[in-house]
Amino acid sequence: MPEYKLHCFAQSGNAYRAALMLNLIGAKWEPVFVDFFAGGETRTPKYRAEVNEMGEVPVLVHGERKLSQSGVILTYLAERSGKFRPEGEDERLEALRWLLFDNQKVNGYLGPYRFLVNWAKPAPHQAVLDFLKARIVNALGITDKRLSARPFLIGDRPTIADVSLSGYLFYPAEEFGFDIGQDYPAIAAWRERIKALPGWKHPYDLMPGHPMPAAGEGT
Amino acid sequence: MPEYKLHCFAQSGNAYRAALMLNLIGAKWEPVFVDFFAGGETRTPKYRAEVNEMGEVPVLVHGERKLSQSGVILTYLAERSGKFRPEGEDERLEALRWLLFDNQKVNGYLGPYRFLVNWAKPAPHQAVLDFLKARIVNALGITDKRLSARPFLIGDRPTIADVSLSGYLFYPAEEFGFDIGQDYPAIAAWRERIKALPGWKHPYDLMPGHPMPAAGEGT
Repeated sequence: MPEYKLHCFAQSGNAYRAALMLNLIGAKWEPVFVDFFAGGETRTPKYRAEVNEMGEVPVLVHGERKLSQSGVILTYLAERSGKFRPEGEDERLEALRWLLFDNQKVNGYLGPYRFLVNWAKPAPHQAVLDFLKARIVNALGITDKRLSARPFLIGDRPTIADVSLSGYLFYPAEEFGFDIGQDYPAIAAWRERIKALPGWKHPYDLMPGHPMPAAGEGT
Repeated sequence: MPEYKLHCFAQSGNAYRAALMLNLIGAKWEPVFVDFFAGGETRTPKYRAEVNEMGEVPVLVHGERKLSQSGVILTYLAERSGKFRPEGEDERLEALRWLLFDNQKVNGYLGPYRFLVNWAKPAPHQAVLDFLKARIVNALGITDKRLSARPFLIGDRPTIADVSLSGYLFYPAEEFGFDIGQDYPAIAAWRERIKALPGWKHPYDLMPGHPMPAAGEGT
């Protein structure tokens, strides 16, 4: 029986951070599919009462523990496994710094942007996409500059800050309408280093729910 | 000579978190005014090279250390002072969970929304305000429900999660165009508990730059 269960679905980059971490540390885990798109599961009172009051994925279940927020899950798994763990006060503060920046400004904006581009009904107003895109460009520029000076966010080895940054950065360029790899060379090079880590998998190979059934198909 | 210096300005709720924490723990500190509005200081190459590559306030200077991201500053000050510090693994993970949620979804959206409403030029598109407002309503609703069941975010005493949540929640209602205190009674009650803490001050009494000179006035 797997040690961990992860509530997730393939299209969520927030869930991908946790799924990727589980794979990278070699944990025994299984996904619990959350029907976000067809069933609106995260918005149901049942999900909010029993799984996560924040109405989000991912949620990690480990024995009696139920943890939400990917940054919490990464911290917990790093402390338990000793892998991707920042060491000492300086590294811990620096990893937390990039984790917060990522959650608010990098993947924190990439996620909603990609959702609006691909799945929002009614279609989003162009002004909203332009607003988010400008903030994404700023945040990716800062990240690219950071990674141009060192192989991983806080130095020579990958930590949970890098696992967090992976969130939406491995999804196909056509889902964003722009190519992060082409526009940000240091992020592109970092992405190759992350892909080379043992256990790395693409989000669509790691979590259930891809491809989605076409509209009208199935339930 | 003050032990801490904080790069900040009065209108920044992100900086307020750090300034409030310094006051609540009784630290000796002084503000370093950042000319965000008239001078665009956080966007200058000098600021990004010498103060914060992320182009943000707050930045805390303590001896040789220079810390950015309010969540990092709160963590650091809690560990040094022993005040507002979550204790044990469960509390640490739970405080981090609310800190991340706040940074991404509560104050993470309230800050840009209030900026657009009051200071953006050209004026923002209504669709952008509507997009942000819907996300703010969702996040404040989750927070209000949480605080209706306990006095502070993670239980019976205030922690850095509450100091973080304070970010934009004490600025005047007219700066948002809606009254958080009226719409969210549990947040309103929590706010009174925070205001009662020794050392609490309003952001405009704690950081420099308020009121702003009228357009055309001064430099």
